[in-house]
Amino acid sequence: MLTEIHQQLEQLARFSSTDGPGVTRVLYSQVDQDARNYLKQFCLQRGLEVREDTIGNTFARWVGKKPQLPAVGTGSHIDAIPESGKYDGTVGVLGGLHAIILLQEQGFLPDRSIELLLFNAEEPTRFGIGCLGSRVISGQLPAASVTQLKDQEGVRFDKWRSKAGFSGDIYSCQLSKDYYHAFVELHIEQGPILEAIEKDIGVVTKIAAPSSFSIQLTGEGGHAGCVLMPDRKDAGCAAAEIVLAVEEIAQLSTSPDTVATCGIVKLEPSAVNSIPKAAYLEVDLRDTQVATRDQVLKEIEHRVVEICRKRNVAFDFKMLNRDPPAACHQSIIDRIRLNSDALGYSHQLMISRAYHDSLFMAQLCPTAMIFIPSRGGVSHRPDEYSSPEQIEKGVRVLAATLKDLSDANTVIS
Amino acid sequence: MLTEIHQQLEQLARFSSTDGPGVTRVLYSQVDQDARNYLKQFCLQRGLEVREDTIGNTFARWVGKKPQLPAVGTGSHIDAIPESGKYDGTVGVLGGLHAIILLQEQGFLPDRSIELLLFNAEEPTRFGIGCLGSRVISGQLPAASVTQLKDQEGVRFDKWRSKAGFSGDIYSCQLSKDYYHAFVELHIEQGPILEAIEKDIGVVTKIAAPSSFSIQLTGEGGHAGCVLMPDRKDAGCAAAEIVLAVEEIAQLSTSPDTVATCGIVKLEPSAVNSIPKAAYLEVDLRDTQVATRDQVLKEIEHRVVEICRKRNVAFDFKMLNRDPPAACHQSIIDRIRLNSDALGYSHQLMISRAYHDSLFMAQLCPTAMIFIPSRGGVSHRPDEYSSPEQIEKGVRVLAATLKDLSDANTVIS
Repeated sequence: MLTEIHQQLEQLARFSSTDGPGVTRVLYSQVDQDARNYLKQFCLQRGLEVREDTIGNTFARWVGKKPQLPAVGTGSHIDAIPESGKYDGTVGVLGGLHAIILLQEQGFLPDRSIELLLFNAEEPTRFGIGCLGSRVISGQLPAASVTQLKDQEGVRFDKWRSKAGFSGDIYSCQLSKDYYHAFVELHIEQGPILEAIEKDIGVVTKIAAPSSFSIQLTGEGGHAGCVLMPDRKDAGCAAAEIVLAVEEIAQLSTSPDTVATCGIVKLEPSAVNSIPKAAYLEVDLRDTQVATRDQVLKEIEHRVVEICRKRNVAFDFKMLNRDPPAACHQSIIDRIRLNSDALGYSHQLMISRAYHDSLFMAQLCPTAMIFIPSRGGVSHRPDEYSSPEQIEKGVRVLAATLKDLSDANTVIS
Repeated sequence: MLTEIHQQLEQLARFSSTDGPGVTRVLYSQVDQDARNYLKQFCLQRGLEVREDTIGNTFARWVGKKPQLPAVGTGSHIDAIPESGKYDGTVGVLGGLHAIILLQEQGFLPDRSIELLLFNAEEPTRFGIGCLGSRVISGQLPAASVTQLKDQEGVRFDKWRSKAGFSGDIYSCQLSKDYYHAFVELHIEQGPILEAIEKDIGVVTKIAAPSSFSIQLTGEGGHAGCVLMPDRKDAGCAAAEIVLAVEEIAQLSTSPDTVATCGIVKLEPSAVNSIPKAAYLEVDLRDTQVATRDQVLKEIEHRVVEICRKRNVAFDFKMLNRDPPAACHQSIIDRIRLNSDALGYSHQLMISRAYHDSLFMAQLCPTAMIFIPSRGGVSHRPDEYSSPEQIEKGVRVLAATLKDLSDANTVIS
């Protein structure tokens, strides 16, 4: 299994719209389509039934002995932000597939069907909203809001979707509450804890409360040589002041878990000899406590108002998402712990600071997550790494857990 | 003349790679080529001899009675930064052409040839360096440096040049010191002074000392949810701190004429959930005094070092250009003043804060500039405006001055 997963992760990394070592794979791009097709082939070879919904979420079902029962889901995403790594998301997709293969090779046949999911766009790259696929599946993002989405150039969701070959009623993507019996996602930790404490498996108890917002600033442009300093309404300087305010407020937060990041700053017209007339920012803000997060959010909004008033720059503040934290299901957590122990792997209960499709799947059915270590805690970078051995341990725990959950007699309480 | 110039300026504005009202016309783009062809047609219709040098600087010569004598030059540029106006540069090109037409229609035939120039890329949009054409013509930018130029995507100068149909030895572009007898450029003021004091004509005495530099910052990326605030080396926050330092240093400068602008800020990877691992800045800094400018430059460099040391972010500081100020030639200044008076137009001696191709032409031959008012002092914006009447006054002063200078007996001392 080790060699095969490793090879497939390497293979998958070649479906990138940028040259290596960084991977870039954005929803509905050609490389995204190519990577899906590559994976669908594997699923078909293993006898799974493959279907896609109208926005492109992909489901590969290993049909169980009692196909009328709610299935057990696993999976993750394959999209990658610009110049990122090979393991984020993909480990959960290939890992889910290999967990199924492992069970198949053991001669096991499940009662409940086991279904592998490839969620659309867990990353917010194209449309500015993360977990697009799982939000829609779980009913957290209505079809009407999906069709309103636009990319940064103003191109509408439907134009991209149909370019990628998908069409039809978006309402049909939402799954009923009895579609899944349970959902378990395998993922890299994307943080330094497991490596530092030398544990094989992270058992996630909670997923942090993420939020993001955009700020559009409108000042006044002009020739960089001709408008004297006191006469300026430089939208770029206002943006810079906001970037530093966001950093400071997060640093001074009462919770050490507060993180805030201005990952996107774009100036207009973006010419060296032109005063920025406009600036666009996107900010990501998270905390393990929803109350602290919302307090920090309020402070940031307050400072934006202050900065823009002082600089005579207009602003438009827009929440992009503001999701509640999710708790993983206790009885699945217990099973993951038991399975780790039984396989001789050490484990650690932990919080997920990154958010995942599981955050939304938890709204649909009992959900849990299995983490494996990330070297140096690094993620969203080309040097993101988990070893084949670490991945295999995660896959074995996942397989055992899927096996348990697929038993018609297993009760999740 | 009024109607024709107005129509031609409107016509020229349609050669834009963005939809109106802003004009975007970048060197070697298709619209840049189309606009040149449009203008070359007019020149040919008026009996001018048109030639282009190996990088695309365009010369249209009204051959005089004594073609062996050094010519008198006039002209400006037609490139436009993203989303800018219709008048910057174009008034000097169409105005130069109409000054020639005016003299032709008066039945005048000059001793010296009068030559209209369309300089390549006065704006630094494509290659990050302004006045590309006039720098090369005047020998201020060696051919070897030109071939080193790259755009922001790393595409080389020669690739762009040949795409636009130009090739051949770049050394051949440099003009000898006796090519021109004198050079006079008509331009919009791009500042508020002439409008405020209600004068028709600005007679430029000096062009401010411009400089620009880039700063490449390299921090450490990572997942926006997973790297806690104290563990970050956010290149975007370092960039923000530099933007504000540049603003503050310019504001506190001993000279009220110091202006500094961060017109370009680009983050990498530019994703909402990713900590910026790198940032690229371009800064424009000018002053009427070269000493003050260089003092401010030193302070900025000092602060960049400080900020990057504190934040543990690496930096690469690169001067893009650092040009001396230019003085206009006194005897041409005097002629412009006399001609304004003779035509019944009011005038004002003034400094040019924006830089122009004349800054470099002044290294080659006696040079001067004629300004006309800019409504509200606005430039590099879609609402840049000078009225047809204001333009006509500038053209008439230019025509009279070209007439004087083309006389074989006129001595410039």
